[in-house]
Amino acid sequence: MSLVVQKFGGTSVADPEKIKNVVDRVLRFVGQGHQVVVVLSAMAGETNRFVDLASRMQKIPDPREMDVLLASGEQVTVSLFAMGVKARGGKAGSLLGDQVRITTDAGHTKARIREIDPGRIMALLAAGNVVVVAGFQGVTENGDLTTLGRGGSDTTAVALASVIGADVCEIFTDVDGVFTTDPNVCASAKKIDRITYDEMLELASLGAKVLDIRSVGIAKKYGIPIHVRSTFTDNDGTWVVREDGEMESRMVSGVTYSKNEARITVSRVPDTPGVASRIFTPISDAGIVVDMIIQNARAGDMTDMTFTVPRTDYDRAMEIVAEVAADIGAGKVGSSTNIAKVSIVGVGMRNHAGVASTAFRVLSDEGINIRMISTSEIKVSCVIEEKYTELAVRTLHDAFGLGDEAQPVEEDWG
Amino acid sequence: MSLVVQKFGGTSVADPEKIKNVVDRVLRFVGQGHQVVVVLSAMAGETNRFVDLASRMQKIPDPREMDVLLASGEQVTVSLFAMGVKARGGKAGSLLGDQVRITTDAGHTKARIREIDPGRIMALLAAGNVVVVAGFQGVTENGDLTTLGRGGSDTTAVALASVIGADVCEIFTDVDGVFTTDPNVCASAKKIDRITYDEMLELASLGAKVLDIRSVGIAKKYGIPIHVRSTFTDNDGTWVVREDGEMESRMVSGVTYSKNEARITVSRVPDTPGVASRIFTPISDAGIVVDMIIQNARAGDMTDMTFTVPRTDYDRAMEIVAEVAADIGAGKVGSSTNIAKVSIVGVGMRNHAGVASTAFRVLSDEGINIRMISTSEIKVSCVIEEKYTELAVRTLHDAFGLGDEAQPVEEDWG
Repeated sequence: MSLVVQKFGGTSVADPEKIKNVVDRVLRFVGQGHQVVVVLSAMAGETNRFVDLASRMQKIPDPREMDVLLASGEQVTVSLFAMGVKARGGKAGSLLGDQVRITTDAGHTKARIREIDPGRIMALLAAGNVVVVAGFQGVTENGDLTTLGRGGSDTTAVALASVIGADVCEIFTDVDGVFTTDPNVCASAKKIDRITYDEMLELASLGAKVLDIRSVGIAKKYGIPIHVRSTFTDNDGTWVVREDGEMESRMVSGVTYSKNEARITVSRVPDTPGVASRIFTPISDAGIVVDMIIQNARAGDMTDMTFTVPRTDYDRAMEIVAEVAADIGAGKVGSSTNIAKVSIVGVGMRNHAGVASTAFRVLSDEGINIRMISTSEIKVSCVIEEKYTELAVRTLHDAFGLGDEAQPVEEDWG
Repeated sequence: MSLVVQKFGGTSVADPEKIKNVVDRVLRFVGQGHQVVVVLSAMAGETNRFVDLASRMQKIPDPREMDVLLASGEQVTVSLFAMGVKARGGKAGSLLGDQVRITTDAGHTKARIREIDPGRIMALLAAGNVVVVAGFQGVTENGDLTTLGRGGSDTTAVALASVIGADVCEIFTDVDGVFTTDPNVCASAKKIDRITYDEMLELASLGAKVLDIRSVGIAKKYGIPIHVRSTFTDNDGTWVVREDGEMESRMVSGVTYSKNEARITVSRVPDTPGVASRIFTPISDAGIVVDMIIQNARAGDMTDMTFTVPRTDYDRAMEIVAEVAADIGAGKVGSSTNIAKVSIVGVGMRNHAGVASTAFRVLSDEGINIRMISTSEIKVSCVIEEKYTELAVRTLHDAFGLGDEAQPVEEDWG
């Protein structure tokens, strides 16, 4: 007998028929003798409906009230789910975030979990119930409802798994697992069977949408295996687990991309101590996260400073930078929103030299100019022109043999 | 400056535009220097949507889970309302039933309020907020969500008014107030300006739908004036208040009717001690409320026993009665679902003899046969054939001069 948390997203519980299918799936598993805590999102479409309603009331909806509104969505799915279990003769009880007592900070619409009380869940499990917990929501110490932001139900599921000591946290979704790259871009993309927490963290932060990055961080911290799998099949999906020896033999696990960034270049910046701080402090003060930074020396104590920001923050960042550039006597400010970041990720890079240079070479062979580069121990990211995104992804995916494990381009690795 | 509870029903908050209208109305009142606690229902149509969703999950939805589902409805309206106040530059905070701490018993879907903590509401009022409370919902001591059943938001409003010591509880609705009878049946129906708690209790229990009977009982107990009025005008509506001398000069305040009952007659019941108990105990054990009972003596120690039950319980009641009738050796069981109950209500009856006989006479003059009669100090009810309902209502309304106060049929009274 195992203790398992199973999380189902909004498309899996979009209407009563879909909820019944999930109920049957969970009850089959319970019938094999397992204990299950189910974590649910709101029905697909509900969050958009709420956002629309709120925007009709207030231009920038009050965050505290927005959370009250949003939290009603999971309340609907957990109650319907519990009814569905009972209709099949099973035992079930729903719990909202504040009923579990998932305590968070007061950062409304993007709160962070502080503490979870496992008591009520364990008592319901011990009494033979399927425990149905509303994902995405918590409560402050003052009793105000909060929500955990994007991917919040994944976070709820993994955090619950850690406090109740679950054997695994299963994240059910509408795809078969985590893929070597976006199958819409590259037809030879393959499901990854096993991947490390660190690789998954990189993939999630680089734009792979299947699993929220915070949930992976929690899973890593507490050593909870995550199993990302399809709601619609019984096939094994992708296991996100601790690193083991076998994994290191694979140089690259996945290729990902993001079109959510913009590039800003300040030219002819006087190359004096503290000048970088004068540019980046006001940007950071405005809550804008700078991703990559490159500094190119020029003649005459001048330097060009290039960096990327999220495209949604582009306009604000440009205003700030224009002001700063004038203040410090820099040259003109250039920019582009037509950029993309493509990345390769893999723990094997640590033991295989030349992965980065192979990536640069194959992109260059396709005539793709690399504008910026950033690397970590298990990742190489390149900023390129947006129009080359799909070509770059396919080129890297092929070059590292991800689509067809029998033919990696081994001869080229340093 | 006064402290007022204002309750708005589902049709008043059916969409963002309607909610904004209510926000403006409340803020005009706040602008006059008053403190306001707003109690809201779910958007019109939401409860039906939830009932439909639940019925698709489970034939008889689990009551605990049904309450979790239903309570999400007011969560939507209170958060949107608070946003609306803030959009207008006002201060507001929403509170759900469990956040106020409206403690109820565990009678899911029809829970009764045990205790309300005024602390959080008073603190928000003191800080200058419009306090927006979710109607219809509460929480058990164990932290399970409950709902208060039909008319529950009225109950929330009046109960809150009593614990915070409000000057008045205003119930906003889509009609101008309480009418002397149903305006759809009788064109001369008039709005009642003032009515006593006891009259309102009788009218509510006899079928007038504008105000829930439980809320009137609470208002009476704590002496909270209720003002039933229109959401769409500034006109005075109907004040439900303690009895005063002026009211007794009016013999009849209103005429009401109900088509929700069915009649059952057990003929040739042996007239022995305890036989009534043998019939009515199993009916009561089945949770069926018997309204009126008549016993007609026959020759030979036999009696006919006639009584009424809610039409929704008719089938179950007939099964039970058929069995009992066989057991006790009674004759055949007759019944009719084509009946209606028409009633006249007024505190003045206590001081004006002959009100009942006038009612019987005017109905008889119209050829309407009275099948059953029940009376109280301030009420006379008659069961008649359903097809005569509207005629009977108009006849009684005219006879007691409710449509035109200048011409009561005074000459006929006692």
